[in-house]
Amino acid sequence: MDVAQVLHMNGGIGETSYANNSLLQRKAVSLTKPIRDEAIQCFYRETFPRSLAIAELGCSSGPNTFFVTCELIETVEKLCRDLNHRSPEYTIFLNDLPSNDFNNIFKSIESFKQKLRGVAGGFGPCYIAGVPGSFYGRIFPTNSLHFVHSSYGLQWMSQVPAGVENNKGNIYMTSTSPLNVWNAYYHQFQRDFSMFLKCRAQEVVEGGYMVLTLLGRRSNNDPSMNKSCLIWDIVAEALNHMVLEGIIREDQMDSFNIPLYTPSSSELELEVVKEGSFTANHLEVFETSWEDAYDEKRNDSKEYQITQFMRAVAEPLLVTHFGEAVMDDVFRHCQDILADRMSKGNLVHISLCISLTRTS
Amino acid sequence: MDVAQVLHMNGGIGETSYANNSLLQRKAVSLTKPIRDEAIQCFYRETFPRSLAIAELGCSSGPNTFFVTCELIETVEKLCRDLNHRSPEYTIFLNDLPSNDFNNIFKSIESFKQKLRGVAGGFGPCYIAGVPGSFYGRIFPTNSLHFVHSSYGLQWMSQVPAGVENNKGNIYMTSTSPLNVWNAYYHQFQRDFSMFLKCRAQEVVEGGYMVLTLLGRRSNNDPSMNKSCLIWDIVAEALNHMVLEGIIREDQMDSFNIPLYTPSSSELELEVVKEGSFTANHLEVFETSWEDAYDEKRNDSKEYQITQFMRAVAEPLLVTHFGEAVMDDVFRHCQDILADRMSKGNLVHISLCISLTRTS
Repeated sequence: MDVAQVLHMNGGIGETSYANNSLLQRKAVSLTKPIRDEAIQCFYRETFPRSLAIAELGCSSGPNTFFVTCELIETVEKLCRDLNHRSPEYTIFLNDLPSNDFNNIFKSIESFKQKLRGVAGGFGPCYIAGVPGSFYGRIFPTNSLHFVHSSYGLQWMSQVPAGVENNKGNIYMTSTSPLNVWNAYYHQFQRDFSMFLKCRAQEVVEGGYMVLTLLGRRSNNDPSMNKSCLIWDIVAEALNHMVLEGIIREDQMDSFNIPLYTPSSSELELEVVKEGSFTANHLEVFETSWEDAYDEKRNDSKEYQITQFMRAVAEPLLVTHFGEAVMDDVFRHCQDILADRMSKGNLVHISLCISLTRTS
Repeated sequence: MDVAQVLHMNGGIGETSYANNSLLQRKAVSLTKPIRDEAIQCFYRETFPRSLAIAELGCSSGPNTFFVTCELIETVEKLCRDLNHRSPEYTIFLNDLPSNDFNNIFKSIESFKQKLRGVAGGFGPCYIAGVPGSFYGRIFPTNSLHFVHSSYGLQWMSQVPAGVENNKGNIYMTSTSPLNVWNAYYHQFQRDFSMFLKCRAQEVVEGGYMVLTLLGRRSNNDPSMNKSCLIWDIVAEALNHMVLEGIIREDQMDSFNIPLYTPSSSELELEVVKEGSFTANHLEVFETSWEDAYDEKRNDSKEYQITQFMRAVAEPLLVTHFGEAVMDDVFRHCQDILADRMSKGNLVHISLCISLTRTS
């Protein structure tokens, strides 16, 4: 699987689109606002920049794309007013893989600017560019960024690790995966995340900031680690059901693994220290409820909405391997499994948020 | 009509797409290579840049999108080898209106880089960004560009001029348009082109270059001016036919005008002098044959292929006003008219190419 070509959220604005099913991600992002505010305020106070280049890595396509950018500009504008400074010039780089629906983003720029005028009052000139490409490689010119943000992109790795053929019945590392699978996944994460830091170190100016939020685990050997990416656990269970029903072949199921790793906070910090170009200011572990995906204003059930949220994220990867035809069936199974689990207790995601400064 | 929302070439890669029907534009662009080569070489020799930011304005979507960029990088790389310099870092900004098919461009970046490796051998790091927005406003940060290129975008104005209601039976300024229509079109061109220069003056660094190619006229009162944008003349004739046939209402036809102006070289130069931030190094007027749109390797007739080329450019504007349903009919008429005209002589476009330097 060529992850850079395949991985993306469901495009467009239809019923199964990410644009219409990303409330959970937005609620989680709201929780980390204080960390971003602190970082952008520090950067502004330390440098009084006349121009401010902000990159949103893994911007996807939908209401979340401009969510953080809007907030960051609002914070800077407030600071400018407090300090009686002229507004800086903003350049916003929206990055995602080339298969992301950039057309959809570009059509919404005008409404983003309108919203910004509403929340920030006046603001400095704001230039917006789309930057397609994997953030596990260089995507920006040297020393061209002041502030980097990414939320819920970095748990995706650049590839499925090699040597996980014996991960039968599973589709990523879970408590029932063999040890070699755990090791393969961890090493792939280490390679990818250190490459990410190395690339950003060249792109972010000295004194620049980076705030990264991703799915994670409570601790290295978290016995309840499934909590952290249960969505894929449910998908795996659905696929296993369908193998038993003869709809999916067993070898098809066994050869499917996803490029996802949910690190613990110490695993994350270790890579930052090893790479050496950034200093961690702040690292937070927090929980969000799956129920945050539920919008009570919508006219469908909680299980259905949460399944749609799963589908918006999971479908493109599944389609590539299992084909379009079985998708409705997969997510019907997911909804049943989900309803059962929800009846037994609250389901949560574990997330990590780290704030970094580019040191010399 | 909101031009910034409506104007774009036919998207995708289908039979009527611009991607598959833009051979003519590419052949015309080939003719101006010496002017671009001269400009980029001068810029390099004058500044020895370590990073080079190039903007392609009105990049559209298809094989032409990267055509000039590829050539420019090839030229710079050759110069670096001759001078024994290390390659600079390239940033390529691809601009078009938000309705352009950027997704299609972004999917072709890898093949562009592959092609570049073929023609340029090794080359410096190359970062690519899409910048949606009208070039009649600011779209780039201050002093952020070194080289600007645009081909066949600038004959499109920001809007249909006001006060052209009496341009009956025509759809832009033609020899049978009333004088007030000519004046309205000319004034709109002046406003738009001077705004274009004013915006670029802030974005292009001192000493930076701009090479612009657009459709034009031989002289201010060119009696054969129809030569220069005959495509729309044929479309107008087709629409008039359809009014007579009762397929299109007369008031629908009378209220349709397109935001196109084909300046003479002196009209172009006058705006450059008036605005004052750029000096013209070179201005060339040249002719290209419609037959350049014909690809003899393809299995369909010359008239059909040239009509497809017209359709790729004209359809989005026509659809907005007349609706999808009549499009096949419109272009069937166009093909008949075209066949008749081609039997009477060679059809040509007049183009202008101007090379400018940003002076202090």
